[in-house]
Amino acid sequence: MDCRIIKSPSEGTMAILNRRKGSGIRDKIDNIDAVGLVQGRLIEMVVASDIAEKAVGVTTEDIRGSCPQNMIMLAIFGDTASVTSAIEEIKKTWETEQW
Amino acid sequence: MDCRIIKSPSEGTMAILNRRKGSGIRDKIDNIDAVGLVQGRLIEMVVASDIAEKAVGVTTEDIRGSCPQNMIMLAIFGDTASVTSAIEEIKKTWETEQW
Amino acid sequence: MDCRIIKSPSEGTMAILNRRKGSGIRDKIDNIDAVGLVQGRLIEMVVASDIAEKAVGVTTEDIRGSCPQNMIMLAIFGDTASVTSAIEEIKKTWETEQW
Amino acid sequence: MDCRIIKSPSEGTMAILNRRKGSGIRDKIDNIDAVGLVQGRLIEMVVASDIAEKAVGVTTEDIRGSCPQNMIMLAIFGDTASVTSAIEEIKKTWETEQW
Amino acid sequence: MDCRIIKSPSEGTMAILNRRKGSGIRDKIDNIDAVGLVQGRLIEMVVASDIAEKAVGVTTEDIRGSCPQNMIMLAIFGDTASVTSAIEEIKKTWETEQW
Amino acid sequence: MDCRIIKSPSEGTMAILNRRKGSGIRDKIDNIDAVGLVQGRLIEMVVASDIAEKAVGVTTEDIRGSCPQNMIMLAIFGDTASVTSAIEEIKKTWETEQW
Repeated sequence: MDCRIIKSPSEGTMAILNRRKGSGIRDKIDNIDAVGLVQGRLIEMVVASDIAEKAVGVTTEDIRGSCPQNMIMLAIFGDTASVTSAIEEIKKTWETEQW
Repeated sequence: MDCRIIKSPSEGTMAILNRRKGSGIRDKIDNIDAVGLVQGRLIEMVVASDIAEKAVGVTTEDIRGSCPQNMIMLAIFGDTASVTSAIEEIKKTWETEQW
Repeated sequence: MDCRIIKSPSEGTMAILNRRKGSGIRDKIDNIDAVGLVQGRLIEMVVASDIAEKAVGVTTEDIRGSCPQNMIMLAIFGDTASVTSAIEEIKKTWETEQW
Repeated sequence: MDCRIIKSPSEGTMAILNRRKGSGIRDKIDNIDAVGLVQGRLIEMVVASDIAEKAVGVTTEDIRGSCPQNMIMLAIFGDTASVTSAIEEIKKTWETEQW
Repeated sequence: MDCRIIKSPSEGTMAILNRRKGSGIRDKIDNIDAVGLVQGRLIEMVVASDIAEKAVGVTTEDIRGSCPQNMIMLAIFGDTASVTSAIEEIKKTWETEQW
Repeated sequence: MDCRIIKSPSEGTMAILNRRKGSGIRDKIDNIDAVGLVQGRLIEMVVASDIAEKAVGVTTEDIRGSCPQNMIMLAIFGDTASVTSAIEEIKKTWETEQW
């Protein structure tokens, strides 16, 4: 499982994420402080999504890969502090539970 | 084969599962106590689905989006005790039969 | 190549197989005594389908994976004795011919 | 590269091949004496298709559904002698040219 | 990266390539002297396409695999001398630049 | 992660990229000085896209069609100096952060 945080994501980066998010391209996510990215197996991403949403005030989205059917990345949107804290919580649970 | 149980799944987590469940997004599953996740090869998931439904009062759904293509994820919805019991039954059969 | 037999498949299990079978979801297969599952490479599945249909009175269906394009499992529907016999025949041919 | 020949293919087997052949399900192939199957990487299958068609009076079709994505299957339809001869030619070229 | 040249490609072979080429099935490519095939990773194929078009008077097409989303082979159409020369140029660049 | 720069990309090469870019085939990108290609895992490509756009005056696009599914390709369009500089910046960050 890999994690990354992008602060003040650029326009092209948000366009890629908006095009590939599971809830569709209609409701574009914009003016975001930070985005956390978590890539791993599907079962891990679903659990990570749950941890992130319970830990702090962020929203999560599944990001599709090359095939529309594949969810391969989790995006966590919010202010920098919340996203950082959500990613930390995911990493901590991962290590503690030998998930 | 990997198993996880999520208690009181968050809204974003249920949204991801509802979008990706095999029976379509129309009949949304809501107000669920717990969800059990089982990820493995398609043949294992079909057998696991059968064990879960025969063991306890839960419903099962196949979740699209695992990668590679011959992997899928099974979601088991129900109250915490039933989901836990279904997951235990799957694990037990797996070990007993060297499935 | 992996084989499994499910006796009196549960409702959710048949729903997963009906949604994913190659002939489409229209003609649902129901009230089935047993279902045999064979997972392997595409060339193996096509040969296994032929052996099953020639050996006993069963019907075979290709089962799709995550992508609609992928056939990754063969389902053999029929009464328990016929399905068991078809699976045995497939295994025997597999071993004899070093298929 | 794997090769198999099915003589007098059963109805369910032809249904799977007809559903998955590249030229579509409209023009069904029926009453076929034999079908040769060749599975390998896409570049190999295109070359094999060319060898088969040049060697003997058979028709070739690409079959969708192999996994992983850069694998496809080639089906060679014709009478038993022609299909056998086409498969032999493919194997011979494969070995000679260290293809 | 694998390369192959097919001289006077057969009808069934051209049908497979026409069905799978990126520019669609509408504008069929016919009466071709030779076709060069190059299979590799996407980044390699795009670079190879550029080398082929700059070296000689050939046209290039991306060939899809099992999923419509996947480009997995490059086809180079033209007369035998041009196709051969394009393939040679690709191989030379590949080796020189330790691409 | 692999990087390549194509100077004065040929017509067929731009056609492949235009057909496969995430923003669709409608708004064709043309008359481009250079294109930088970066292939890697989805999470890396999103980060690389952000670095490229912040470093210099280029535009980025995700290119569909890599295989396996968790791989995509990023295309960076702009004048030769800007594309080269963006690729350098991506490589530098990659090495510095042991990304």
